[in-house]
Amino acid sequence: MYQVDKLYEAVAAKGPVCVGLDTAVEYLPPGERRRAASDAEAVLAFNRAIIDATADICACFKIQIACYEELGLAGLAAYAKTLACLRERGALVIADIKRGDIADTALRYAKAHFTGDFEADFVTLSPYMGMDSIEPWLSYADSRGKGAFVLMRTSNKGMRDFEYQELKAGGRLYDVVGDRLTELAAGRLGNYGYGAFGAVVGCTEPEEAALIRKKRGNLFFLIPGYGAQGGAAADAALLLREGNGGVVNASRSILRAWAANGITAEKDAADNRFAAEAARKAALEMRDAIRIAAGLRT
Amino acid sequence: MYQVDKLYEAVAAKGPVCVGLDTAVEYLPPGERRRAASDAEAVLAFNRAIIDATADICACFKIQIACYEELGLAGLAAYAKTLACLRERGALVIADIKRGDIADTALRYAKAHFTGDFEADFVTLSPYMGMDSIEPWLSYADSRGKGAFVLMRTSNKGMRDFEYQELKAGGRLYDVVGDRLTELAAGRLGNYGYGAFGAVVGCTEPEEAALIRKKRGNLFFLIPGYGAQGGAAADAALLLREGNGGVVNASRSILRAWAANGITAEKDAADNRFAAEAARKAALEMRDAIRIAAGLRT
Repeated sequence: MYQVDKLYEAVAAKGPVCVGLDTAVEYLPPGERRRAASDAEAVLAFNRAIIDATADICACFKIQIACYEELGLAGLAAYAKTLACLRERGALVIADIKRGDIADTALRYAKAHFTGDFEADFVTLSPYMGMDSIEPWLSYADSRGKGAFVLMRTSNKGMRDFEYQELKAGGRLYDVVGDRLTELAAGRLGNYGYGAFGAVVGCTEPEEAALIRKKRGNLFFLIPGYGAQGGAAADAALLLREGNGGVVNASRSILRAWAANGITAEKDAADNRFAAEAARKAALEMRDAIRIAAGLRT
Repeated sequence: MYQVDKLYEAVAAKGPVCVGLDTAVEYLPPGERRRAASDAEAVLAFNRAIIDATADICACFKIQIACYEELGLAGLAAYAKTLACLRERGALVIADIKRGDIADTALRYAKAHFTGDFEADFVTLSPYMGMDSIEPWLSYADSRGKGAFVLMRTSNKGMRDFEYQELKAGGRLYDVVGDRLTELAAGRLGNYGYGAFGAVVGCTEPEEAALIRKKRGNLFFLIPGYGAQGGAAADAALLLREGNGGVVNASRSILRAWAANGITAEKDAADNRFAAEAARKAALEMRDAIRIAAGLRT
């Protein structure tokens, strides 16, 4: 069974929210950060609180490795411990690592992120170097059901620089990436019609969303761009199919929900428990908004 | 002063070889691996021997992080210690991390790889998401002279999948990436006419090489594809200008030189000292072959 099937089932049961553990130290309640033995310890304790508060109402978690690498070796230890915490709780996790290297090197990365200290269920990959930077990862789809989301059309401003380039043969660069990913998915199709490997498609260009969803029927989507990057529930829903077939990521708006509602003088008093409650509330609101936009009952 | 200026001076003084510390455990003399307390320790000891044996005859080192990530946290500790060893010896190092993420995330990666445990002089970057995945790194060019090599036209087979796509407006995708990198370099030009940020251009397509070198006058090149991937000294020389303006990477052919010359029965006896001598010999031969092909005296 591919992890993408488990992800499909998680979305059906718990909604399409992907909680982004892009846990920058500046997102933490300042008091918690001050009290902790180190920034890395503070990040780990915060993550545990967020995971406990949201695991039953989100499909999965995404963990942005850059936030941990920034803290050096201690940060990567916190990264490994956060992954261990997620595995203990049976939560699905996407390692947002955007690796893109070839052949032997790709296999080494795959071993690093699909086994051992840094084991995740899914990774994100960058396709620039070509399909020989994606295909080696498939051996872990075959042996362990692991999955990947390959950058196709992202949600940042710079996506227009290269992803949007119009090709001589017609279409844009991201269409050709999509074509190759569609082939890949067809070769490893799960129980719900989605391939083991899917794509990253941002919800910031709603005019294209319905077309992309229709054209890429067998690709499960990791959908960034919600909230802070401007995407709304209605935009995200366009990339889903009956509310499934994708997970919608939010990071800052969930992790920093503790700071959002008029907490200013009391900011220092906010602790992880308070932050976790605020995160749960934000994730629930997001889930319900997307479900409603997708035409489902909440 | 930009690190690219130091790199230019290193090439002038010591030749264009970049020794790739893509130190997979299976590259080590088996006896050394067996004797070491752990694979990560074995890799570190081997790296120290290779660095000591080649630092005076190579321009710089490249360190492929995947080989260390593969060993988990212990591997990344060996990665950090290898970088520390290179800094102690005053050697220039390119962290081959091929990161490509945007905005805040890019800044976190830049902090991770230009300061602290994982500090390097240069990194490799992937441009798929657009220039907002490259530009944040420039703040470290301004504050600390750091540099980057952005994937432009690589040396793997899969480069034809996307990098080679012909564009409606003319040229190929890698040309547009090259155009943007040329602009970037023009804004941060070092003392020898090369920008702080350069490009990765493989030496596997000699028919294009002279044109690329001519068109990208202000880009310093990191040149993969030599040896194991089929590039010859003459091909690499086409991407240089009077033997400078780029560094030519070789990994396996240098690290595994100990195994190359008929060592079979004695394989187990080969130790790090033997491997280091063989690596030095291989690097010297490569340096001289490229210098001759570039029309210089060795």
